Amino acid sequence: MKLSQSFVKTLRDAPKDETAKSAKYLVRAGYVHKELAGVYDFLPLGLKTLRNIENIIREELNRVGCNELQMTALQNPDSWQKTERWNSDRMDIWFKTELSAGGELGLGPTHEEPGTAMMKDYIKSYKDLPANFYQFQTKFRNELRAKSGIMRTREFLMKDLYSFNTNKEEHDKFYHLIEEVYKKIYSRVGLGDCTYQTFASGGAFSKYSHEFQTVLPVGEDTIYYNADKSIVLNEEVLNDEVLADLGVKREELESTKAAEVGNIFSLGYKFSKPLDLSYTDQDGKKQLVYMGSYGIGVSRVMGVIAEKFADDKGLVWPEEIAPYRYYLVAIGENAEKKAEELEKQYSELILLDNRNMRPGEKFADSELMGIPYRLVISDKTLEKNSAELTARKTGEQKLLTLDELVAILSKV
Amino acid sequence: MKLSQSFVKTLRDAPKDETAKSAKYLVRAGYVHKELAGVYDFLPLGLKTLRNIENIIREELNRVGCNELQMTALQNPDSWQKTERWNSDRMDIWFKTELSAGGELGLGPTHEEPGTAMMKDYIKSYKDLPANFYQFQTKFRNELRAKSGIMRTREFLMKDLYSFNTNKEEHDKFYHLIEEVYKKIYSRVGLGDCTYQTFASGGAFSKYSHEFQTVLPVGEDTIYYNADKSIVLNEEVLNDEVLADLGVKREELESTKAAEVGNIFSLGYKFSKPLDLSYTDQDGKKQLVYMGSYGIGVSRVMGVIAEKFADDKGLVWPEEIAPYRYYLVAIGENAEKKAEELEKQYSELILLDNRNMRPGEKFADSELMGIPYRLVISDKTLEKNSAELTARKTGEQKLLTLDELVAILSKV
Repeated sequence: MKLSQSFVKTLRDAPKDETAKSAKYLVRAGYVHKELAGVYDFLPLGLKTLRNIENIIREELNRVGCNELQMTALQNPDSWQKTERWNSDRMDIWFKTELSAGGELGLGPTHEEPGTAMMKDYIKSYKDLPANFYQFQTKFRNELRAKSGIMRTREFLMKDLYSFNTNKEEHDKFYHLIEEVYKKIYSRVGLGDCTYQTFASGGAFSKYSHEFQTVLPVGEDTIYYNADKSIVLNEEVLNDEVLADLGVKREELESTKAAEVGNIFSLGYKFSKPLDLSYTDQDGKKQLVYMGSYGIGVSRVMGVIAEKFADDKGLVWPEEIAPYRYYLVAIGENAEKKAEELEKQYSELILLDNRNMRPGEKFADSELMGIPYRLVISDKTLEKNSAELTARKTGEQKLLTLDELVAILSKV
Repeated sequence: MKLSQSFVKTLRDAPKDETAKSAKYLVRAGYVHKELAGVYDFLPLGLKTLRNIENIIREELNRVGCNELQMTALQNPDSWQKTERWNSDRMDIWFKTELSAGGELGLGPTHEEPGTAMMKDYIKSYKDLPANFYQFQTKFRNELRAKSGIMRTREFLMKDLYSFNTNKEEHDKFYHLIEEVYKKIYSRVGLGDCTYQTFASGGAFSKYSHEFQTVLPVGEDTIYYNADKSIVLNEEVLNDEVLADLGVKREELESTKAAEVGNIFSLGYKFSKPLDLSYTDQDGKKQLVYMGSYGIGVSRVMGVIAEKFADDKGLVWPEEIAPYRYYLVAIGENAEKKAEELEKQYSELILLDNRNMRPGEKFADSELMGIPYRLVISDKTLEKNSAELTARKTGEQKLLTLDELVAILSKV
């Protein structure tokens, strides 16, 4: 794309109340715009980055046969009353509103209840199981404070997956499958080396759940780990019983700050029982459905990646999720012509900075925006029929011939 | 895709309170699930259809250089108070809610106000214009009654585009460009022959706006038209002044029922003035930005298409938006093997009904679901190395050789 086509400009200042490094850069680089605390618009570059993460998740879930759909934000109280999560004492992050025709509604903070209630229409017999569905859907959570940029917001994009099985054994198989899918996802978005599957509290659902935690100095969680035994656990379950369960001693554990980027829960009958989601088994007997839920905060993952890799010049995106892979700057008339040709052919990969500005300003913007590679074509490089490539992450530079460049672009 | 992978089943009955034909079929065929009146989940087939419409709109807007982003549902009252649309007397379809930290919020029914306020960060000088952005975003409207299935809902997917220009002349050019883009979009989604650009009230914004109206017996609007003069107008502006403006007499007009599938507005300074969105012109003088807005209710368009083409057997989707183009039924063991091969290779085009059911039931489901072509492969057709193709719309049947079939599938 040509930058001149976009209305977005990099900004000198971020809103004064932004404290997270990633939030400051995301605003300044034109990825997001703040509507109010914890509520952000995704500008073109930000939306493209978010969609790249979304598409990786979608690909990996579809690959193992998951079904995508989309439920609603507006929530009927019925199913939430049955599980006793309608009351704000039990679920303190509700946004509630009212129908003008009369009656209270909520804005979905998660979708176990409506998902379970919906499946009553489709699950009747053991023949209808196993079943699953997932969605990319906007959640609303009335957080008292919002302060970590897009890492913790009041309105955010979440991937939530729900599974429905005949029994625990069948459920466990799916649960393990999704564990593996999650590892692949974190690896593909660039967090593979620093993200750990972590024992966490099962809450009201089961003894444990699993979180995926990315090591991050400003993370909200503290995790304890033993590298030799490959054991990681959240501080919230650091007690004698759990240590005995996991076969590890307190003094064998080291701690670090981390940010949760996903979680998976065995729900058991927690929702199917109050909502009466059941099936007829092969003997004609009624049985409750065994459920699981699996979440990834998509916009939160984007925030964690921004926070994790940003340096003192700005954002640094992993290649697979960057909105564009190359930031192209042309210096001189012939170079501009060549640059336009390249952008035209590879408009999905190249962000061409064709604005009427000094190269130094463009270089600074390319660093602030965190595009993985800066490409400079000047009349001087053209003499050698080449372009200068600079990696955003390492600063490493090399001269590529235009043929080599086209070969790389064609392969992506 | 293989139908066995999906949890969705066709249902014998639709909810009793559904009156629209399309809503009954969409529920029964497993495209949508009703959460409450005017609030629908999009099940896998429904989401795929919706996305096909969305992608056509996106392609056509991107082609003319529009910028996609995504704003938020949660709305700060500030900008709405400045335009006097916060008060429910002025805008009676607000859903409002409250921050637990204190303060009222609204759920965006449209985005002129936040969009105008946001652009104050990016538009400073005439050099920053023209500008535009669009989004596919979930709108919330607290309709008193909701009765037309997904044609009029309380939560729906809308494409809204906003334009920002230095003056009316520059705006008019963009407005005409979008008129043409809209015609292309309606043509591509299958509504080209029956959708008319219609003079309508400009509301508080300007003398006229344009609506795109699809002729539909159960439509909520009445339009008047003169085919010879290519004039179409909404009943709401059928008065002497307008007739004089358009140069047509009352008795030269015929009327019909229609459903609005899009609208375009010249907003002028209606929003830029109260929100002070201005730019410095070439002489260093401050000028207000001239605005326009352009909407398409994406889920509504899907509902109108469903309603328009459905027959007594079920839905009938135009090819370009159908979730799958072929509904494949195999009869006999060799046929099943061949069918699985085809589905594997063309899984985006083929919905393979591999459920353990009689062919007649499968045929009925394929008709209910409105998939454009039914393909039957049986051991009998395989003897002739062929498959039987039946068009959903016309019932026309023909025998294709498998080579011909593969040639067609490869070309889509």
